[in-house]
Amino acid sequence: MASPERVPQNAPEQAHHLTRLRLDVSYDGTEFAGWARQPGLRTAQGELEDWIGRVLHLPSLPRLTCAGRTDAGVHARGQVVHVDVDPLAVRRSQRSTDEDTDLPTLLARRLARALPADLVVRSVAMAPPGFDARFSAIWRRYVYRLWDADHAPDPLLRRHLATCPPLDLTKINEASAGLIGLRDFAPFCKRRAGATTIRTLLELNAVRRTAGDLSGVVELTVRADAFCHSMVRSLTGALVDVGSGRREPAWLTALAARPVRAGEVPVMPAGGLTLEEVGYPTDDRLAERADQARATREL
Amino acid sequence: MASPERVPQNAPEQAHHLTRLRLDVSYDGTEFAGWARQPGLRTAQGELEDWIGRVLHLPSLPRLTCAGRTDAGVHARGQVVHVDVDPLAVRRSQRSTDEDTDLPTLLARRLARALPADLVVRSVAMAPPGFDARFSAIWRRYVYRLWDADHAPDPLLRRHLATCPPLDLTKINEASAGLIGLRDFAPFCKRRAGATTIRTLLELNAVRRTAGDLSGVVELTVRADAFCHSMVRSLTGALVDVGSGRREPAWLTALAARPVRAGEVPVMPAGGLTLEEVGYPTDDRLAERADQARATREL
Repeated sequence: MASPERVPQNAPEQAHHLTRLRLDVSYDGTEFAGWARQPGLRTAQGELEDWIGRVLHLPSLPRLTCAGRTDAGVHARGQVVHVDVDPLAVRRSQRSTDEDTDLPTLLARRLARALPADLVVRSVAMAPPGFDARFSAIWRRYVYRLWDADHAPDPLLRRHLATCPPLDLTKINEASAGLIGLRDFAPFCKRRAGATTIRTLLELNAVRRTAGDLSGVVELTVRADAFCHSMVRSLTGALVDVGSGRREPAWLTALAARPVRAGEVPVMPAGGLTLEEVGYPTDDRLAERADQARATREL
Repeated sequence: MASPERVPQNAPEQAHHLTRLRLDVSYDGTEFAGWARQPGLRTAQGELEDWIGRVLHLPSLPRLTCAGRTDAGVHARGQVVHVDVDPLAVRRSQRSTDEDTDLPTLLARRLARALPADLVVRSVAMAPPGFDARFSAIWRRYVYRLWDADHAPDPLLRRHLATCPPLDLTKINEASAGLIGLRDFAPFCKRRAGATTIRTLLELNAVRRTAGDLSGVVELTVRADAFCHSMVRSLTGALVDVGSGRREPAWLTALAARPVRAGEVPVMPAGGLTLEEVGYPTDDRLAERADQARATREL
């Protein structure tokens, strides 16, 4: 074990005496006020930090970092987070089975017994060196699920869909193709001071499911290196307007060229959106990627 | 239009001045105390009867008959019901569009605007002659969804799954094969006075989904001409005990040969069960089938 060197506070690097864990997390966003901790509100980060602190009997609240800060009502199947824990501060129980258990297994087992049903930790693992859930990620994949039939959607799926007028998927996919690549997504973002809105959109397409439980559902997949605030729901709103014939494709082309967000871009409801997956590079490139991303996005 | 002949009250046949409608219905059972109307409780039948009466401005509450009386918490994707409505009693609105609309379209349109999100009428149609949602049905297909992994299930699906120990599907399917066919299902039924428990089990098998949103989920399909009370959940409970190794296959064989229900058959939780589909014969055999079923099951 490394000696407990002092590291400057707020250093992005992991303190030497701490163990960084990677958690893969899913949640039904319906009853969360989003990912980010907020006083007095039930959030995924808040619940998870509270429970990790409690089940490991940590002396202070652990801080989680996530790959995608989802808004209130947005779901996650593939959220990734990291947390730094001092293994010496973890109180192990008297039971001999716990004594032999490594920290990830211990945490996974205890969280499984503690967490509410709408928040699931699918796995806990030692993070590889250089791993940062947010800055090491190379892409995030979201799916927005739309229901455009004239009857109501399957009530068993209603929390994960948003309804809209009948869609022409050819129109949506033609319009989508023009948005792929590196560009300033300011017209689709709620601007935050000092944050860039330049992103690389890697994938944007709509597919109608034709079999299984989701038969009839339109899935709009949006994959990018990173997202700015409300970007997926704004892109979806604009594409729904084109696909339903409410707007011409030329409207979207003109819109995408504007320097700032336009009020006429509808933001779709949160309940249709799910963070499905986060991509990371191979372990040897994690630290390099994190340095790059930090430099680009924190400037 | 036929003359309004008097028909005896409670006659199973449709009164001549009434129009029989077939409704295809889905619901998320989580917040219903089952299908059947019960005073003071929120039930699918209660909500639907109330809303049909209200949106058609009927002078008295319509009575619905369903194909499968689901228990509290059980879901339906393919429930079928019929209702007899006096078309002369339906108050049409002043809007000229309504005047030209046939009764099924009118009812479907008005229900779509009125019903809560967990109860959906997928279609309304004129019932063919001789159609009875309950007695014309030739089979009902239920699916029980099981989650047997060591981590918690996808929180987006949790309301439609039940968790259980790891399952050996080969064991389940071998045991299932022995139950197919015509037999007395009394060992798996909560007996009701005067009701037969002899049923024909047409299909019973377990499949593990390997792709898509339900990946990892075990789907136990149970299809029979009809079901007695708690039959699907008891069959599932017995098969889970065999599939998890808690019981030997011989236990199930002995159990199935008993004359009455055994206390050792576990009844699985309602939330894992969904009524998926109801089968009917071709239109020319609807009345004949209804007579047959009525004779068998009401004796």
